[in-house]
Amino acid sequence: MRATVMHGAGDVRIENVPDARPIEPTDALVVVSRGCICGSDLWPYKTMEHSDTGRRMGHEAIGVVEAIGADVRTMKAGDVVVMPFAYSDGTCVFCREGLHTSCIHGGFFGAGDGDGAQAEAVRVPQADGTLVVLPVGADDVLTPSLLTLSDVMGTGHHAAVAAEVGPGKAVAVVGDGAVGLCGVIAARRLGAEQIIILGRHPERIALAREFGATDVVSERGDEAVERVRELTDGLGVHSVLECVGLEQSMLTAIGITRAGGAVGRVGVPQDETMPASQPAFYSNITVGGGPAPVRAYIEELLPDILDGRIEPGRVFDRAVRLDEVPDGYRAMNDREAIKVMVEP
Amino acid sequence: MRATVMHGAGDVRIENVPDARPIEPTDALVVVSRGCICGSDLWPYKTMEHSDTGRRMGHEAIGVVEAIGADVRTMKAGDVVVMPFAYSDGTCVFCREGLHTSCIHGGFFGAGDGDGAQAEAVRVPQADGTLVVLPVGADDVLTPSLLTLSDVMGTGHHAAVAAEVGPGKAVAVVGDGAVGLCGVIAARRLGAEQIIILGRHPERIALAREFGATDVVSERGDEAVERVRELTDGLGVHSVLECVGLEQSMLTAIGITRAGGAVGRVGVPQDETMPASQPAFYSNITVGGGPAPVRAYIEELLPDILDGRIEPGRVFDRAVRLDEVPDGYRAMNDREAIKVMVEP
Repeated sequence: MRATVMHGAGDVRIENVPDARPIEPTDALVVVSRGCICGSDLWPYKTMEHSDTGRRMGHEAIGVVEAIGADVRTMKAGDVVVMPFAYSDGTCVFCREGLHTSCIHGGFFGAGDGDGAQAEAVRVPQADGTLVVLPVGADDVLTPSLLTLSDVMGTGHHAAVAAEVGPGKAVAVVGDGAVGLCGVIAARRLGAEQIIILGRHPERIALAREFGATDVVSERGDEAVERVRELTDGLGVHSVLECVGLEQSMLTAIGITRAGGAVGRVGVPQDETMPASQPAFYSNITVGGGPAPVRAYIEELLPDILDGRIEPGRVFDRAVRLDEVPDGYRAMNDREAIKVMVEP
Repeated sequence: MRATVMHGAGDVRIENVPDARPIEPTDALVVVSRGCICGSDLWPYKTMEHSDTGRRMGHEAIGVVEAIGADVRTMKAGDVVVMPFAYSDGTCVFCREGLHTSCIHGGFFGAGDGDGAQAEAVRVPQADGTLVVLPVGADDVLTPSLLTLSDVMGTGHHAAVAAEVGPGKAVAVVGDGAVGLCGVIAARRLGAEQIIILGRHPERIALAREFGATDVVSERGDEAVERVRELTDGLGVHSVLECVGLEQSMLTAIGITRAGGAVGRVGVPQDETMPASQPAFYSNITVGGGPAPVRAYIEELLPDILDGRIEPGRVFDRAVRLDEVPDGYRAMNDREAIKVMVEP
């Protein structure tokens, strides 16, 4: 089958690889209907050292179950399923607590030796714990929005939960990528009164406004902090969704958080240390978040997508065939596209 | 009057200073019955650059109201009061949210131009919002425990709250100083099932056990992390009370936190950056805490002290007269004493 393999920074290839197939009795084989390229894929795209064997890419998918292992109980061949970016058994102590990304028998797609989802098919370990059968066909008009349950919508929601967003609160979203935009949806959905998006790309800002952003701050660094404080009676916001992961974005996030507020971070941190530890301390600011347990959120978010109350699929502004995936990476890296869907 | 003035590292003097007196109509003048030396006083004791004018020290006290400003309503001369380490108006947006250490009209004793409480008397700004009248005499047998409401008991409680301690949880306390020991009391009081104290001083450990610690880890660094994991089925603890503030203590704190758990930090951080940002992220560990709004906690903790359910005053293992305060600093800095009470 064909799959996406990254061999180094800027070096993404579509290659013939051994066909995916169930190995363990808890596996399912899923033929990918739609995959996508993630903002987090851009980190290796910028920095990965050359590798002859390369790394299989992709961790988001909607697909059709082609085969299941002997122990799989909750799905059958032909079912349309959504695949969270992490696999998890659904039964361990962490899964029971809703933290599927720390599953004791879990792992991540597009990492290590496992399959990636920017491919024709993918082997899904722990299928019963991981996959959710969808009540629609693989080509449903809702597919783009349902596909965001794999990662970006659940991740934006996780940022909002970690940032303690709630009714009446003032919220800021640092980062206008797909996750940040889904964070705006999540903040509005959870009842935020004011939602400030920090970004400067006109089409992203326009979408953020349609998703519920009430204010836009295009400045950066200290000027952004000052502007957010102006918008919040000098106090800062209760909740910040940090959707970037750089030192500067975290500095800004802490700088705009109101005393006693919370930063929910979902941007993969690129530095070993966190800046502004002392300012965060003196203002009793809580910093939480991490890899989103998107599997835990599907039951909550799915009805809102099926009923059309939220439309996170609008973050996809480009679609490519599998052969065109390398150009999809380039387009996202050049910020030509917010998020690229892959139609194998 | 006589007051404690620090002129540099290791240079603590008792000097004659202008008598404290009410200045603003919201002030009270409190004659100090009992003060104390705080672990946080040891940071300037170790590092302060020489100053001719010096810095007034002390931020914990129980005393008797001597005089009040024209606008003070909730106390009268002769009342016995406990003084939180921060003053606060009790009415601003942050005070109403219970975050008195961020009070818009607030500040800290023993900082800036204000009085310190290692002195014969202290001017208390925002007296109505700051002071709490106690239903006991100034020489009551409960005075040591009531005095901890000024800081260490409320601070240990804050660490436990920020660390999300609750019934049935596994908790670790990093630091066996007075705050860490009060953290043990707080963790037990909030229903923790397992309380692991990290420390190695026999008398402190013995007190921690009496306060409710179930396990002791005397190792440090990676060995401490390994030992805590052994004690918790390899998972780590749900809640860590970080009561030190050094890079190594925070590294340990994050290293022993279970995925999805929380670190409540009350040790004043000595570094600009926080270590282990990436491990904390990947395990979805929340880091919260800061200067404890001890004023907010007095109503909750006071009945437990009055009824004898908790005895935080046992952290005081030495008492000095005002003239002996410099030796009290030395004793705490040399770890001869856990916490020193001052009897002016």
